[in-house]
Amino acid sequence: MAVGDVSMPHMHVVQGVKIGSAEAYVRYPNRRDLVIFEFAEGTNVAGVFTQNAFCAAPVHVSKKHLEMGNPRYLVINTGNANAGTGKPGMENARATCYKLAELAQVEASEVLPFSTGVIGEQLPMERLLSGLQPALDSLKDSAWVDAAAGIMTTDTTPKGASEQFELDGVTYTMTGISKGAGMIRPNMATMLSFVATDAPISRELVQQLLKTTVNQSFNRITIDGDTSTNDSCIFAVTAQAGGTEISSVDDVRYSVVLDVLTRVMKRLAQLIVRDGEGATKFITVAVEGGNDTQECCDIAYSIAHSPLVKTALFASDPNWGRILAAIGYAGVKDLDVEKIQVWLGDVQICRDGGAAEDYTEEAGARVMAESEITIRVDLGRGQAKDTVYTCDLSYDYVKINADYRS
Amino acid sequence: MAVGDVSMPHMHVVQGVKIGSAEAYVRYPNRRDLVIFEFAEGTNVAGVFTQNAFCAAPVHVSKKHLEMGNPRYLVINTGNANAGTGKPGMENARATCYKLAELAQVEASEVLPFSTGVIGEQLPMERLLSGLQPALDSLKDSAWVDAAAGIMTTDTTPKGASEQFELDGVTYTMTGISKGAGMIRPNMATMLSFVATDAPISRELVQQLLKTTVNQSFNRITIDGDTSTNDSCIFAVTAQAGGTEISSVDDVRYSVVLDVLTRVMKRLAQLIVRDGEGATKFITVAVEGGNDTQECCDIAYSIAHSPLVKTALFASDPNWGRILAAIGYAGVKDLDVEKIQVWLGDVQICRDGGAAEDYTEEAGARVMAESEITIRVDLGRGQAKDTVYTCDLSYDYVKINADYRS
Repeated sequence: MAVGDVSMPHMHVVQGVKIGSAEAYVRYPNRRDLVIFEFAEGTNVAGVFTQNAFCAAPVHVSKKHLEMGNPRYLVINTGNANAGTGKPGMENARATCYKLAELAQVEASEVLPFSTGVIGEQLPMERLLSGLQPALDSLKDSAWVDAAAGIMTTDTTPKGASEQFELDGVTYTMTGISKGAGMIRPNMATMLSFVATDAPISRELVQQLLKTTVNQSFNRITIDGDTSTNDSCIFAVTAQAGGTEISSVDDVRYSVVLDVLTRVMKRLAQLIVRDGEGATKFITVAVEGGNDTQECCDIAYSIAHSPLVKTALFASDPNWGRILAAIGYAGVKDLDVEKIQVWLGDVQICRDGGAAEDYTEEAGARVMAESEITIRVDLGRGQAKDTVYTCDLSYDYVKINADYRS
Repeated sequence: MAVGDVSMPHMHVVQGVKIGSAEAYVRYPNRRDLVIFEFAEGTNVAGVFTQNAFCAAPVHVSKKHLEMGNPRYLVINTGNANAGTGKPGMENARATCYKLAELAQVEASEVLPFSTGVIGEQLPMERLLSGLQPALDSLKDSAWVDAAAGIMTTDTTPKGASEQFELDGVTYTMTGISKGAGMIRPNMATMLSFVATDAPISRELVQQLLKTTVNQSFNRITIDGDTSTNDSCIFAVTAQAGGTEISSVDDVRYSVVLDVLTRVMKRLAQLIVRDGEGATKFITVAVEGGNDTQECCDIAYSIAHSPLVKTALFASDPNWGRILAAIGYAGVKDLDVEKIQVWLGDVQICRDGGAAEDYTEEAGARVMAESEITIRVDLGRGQAKDTVYTCDLSYDYVKINADYRS
């Protein structure tokens, strides 16, 4: 079960975005597993994709099509990742674009394909292509919740975030969905996320906004350290709510949009961690006092990836020695352990590299019993800081991943 | 339970090495938890230690004492790692050396201390020091099996290897023990290992032999990716069986010793993986066709650390897509996935970056059902190769580490 409040908020409509879906029987019958996004003409679209060398066929195709110009359609299937599928996989990803382009009367390069699910099997093309027309027929602007459900794999809950904000008297909307619960780690961790706004933003700034906010959200979460072959995050700006274009970072409206997008992206990213496979706890690892953000990140990830720390969190065992060990092997050079402070919640567990004298097991156990825990580390050597979000490692993680294909 | 044959072999006596042990009640009453090694005068000793910045107090003291000259005694306690213990921890490690030195009439710097167990608690010094005399009183040359049992923590089985070999008509012995089942990863993975021989080898070559063989054994295993604060491996050469000193790598006898030591170290390292926490399978990850051994290692470890690969191995599920994904995110530059071949045992699962056409789930399932599995990867871009050993990730790993302190 997901940790904390993961409820779907009211998903405000984004003008210029329509969503359709269908049951295409990609892997299982009788489930919504095919989703189509339609963007109004003139929509600016930016994307970031997995760094995995074995990136999936649809990722190759989406990157190429995005370079060629703004897409009008996204087509997303769950149940099959179309990764590790060689040339037939590439052909299938392209064929999906061709077919949708033909039905929607656009160029094939105006379609971006996305897939998520099992790696290494070919898509059931006949069933998938047959689902495109019904999905197109169902296009409407209020289907964000259906889309969130339609892209789930091992997720236990659909994931959405939505905000409205005002610029110069005009009300705009920022709405997005994400999916992912396993194979989650930095470098595009989400597996899939789609965010859209009807605010008017120039193409250059759209890409910049996406990169900046992904680095504070999806690139700061980890569940199991496994970088997926399919991770993609798309940000679409329709500009359909009117107003003059925001084309400079010096425009005061830019910082408002940045704030809203950061909140939406962080929420969508954290929802993935809260729904982490087998997760019983939501963990914030905040590292401060570093020379640069890279070393703060290295240490935060070292803690967040340690199976020993994660099982101790699952057991509500304040076994803080495992946290110190993870700090120690993060590979940060010239670390002076005698300057290091560590807190579990509001309880200091490590002072100047050793056990804090006033620390008690009772105080540690009180923090560990909570379902949302912050591990804070001060390296005592600089001003940089960074934060990573993760979950614990439970029996159910093993169960889910040992059973996934059966 | 450990995987495969982990039985203790006949542990041949090493001339010039005596071993004693006692029940000091470091953590639990009525168990052998204190071990002492005594080396004959003139014994050459080499050591390698953890790279963890939070290395334990006894590691600091052992490194310093080893720089000062050859030790005559090792003193090892289990139950408490004396790590993350600050200045009191350093004082306790030194006090242990002083006390043993006083009882044995040597210099304190001729004693190396070792600890393994829970991190972050102070040693029960009164009980530990009281155990030293009984341990000294029990010194005898045939106590290797007792020592292997006396250094165990979460190990389910004591670990030993022993060989005899002949050089110029003289029979020599190489005998060693190791311990460790969790917090195991490269850069001195063993937690603790002690190996001795009575062959005559010069001090310089002792250190070189240790470094060379550690890199093919303890530095090539991983269970959970957690580098311990206490890892140490000691190689002691007593030269007590006679013969002229081996002082050059060109001496034909050197390569004989190197072969024997490599086998003994590999066996001791693999025993740790076979006894990995919750392990049900022993996995060999062999990567070949790389530009250099580093990239072969990077990919082998990426596979060996992936929780998704490890849970699939536990489930006997030939979910080879997870192996491809782990290869893809290993961070190796300019990887041409279309040149990559992957085998599960004798079954080729991936040909030229995609599914092998003749692969069947039945063939994959047959290999995955075995308790010893080799994953072989050919990168198709060079002559380098390297091999890493690991185990699967099971419910019991979580259980053991969620319960360890209770």
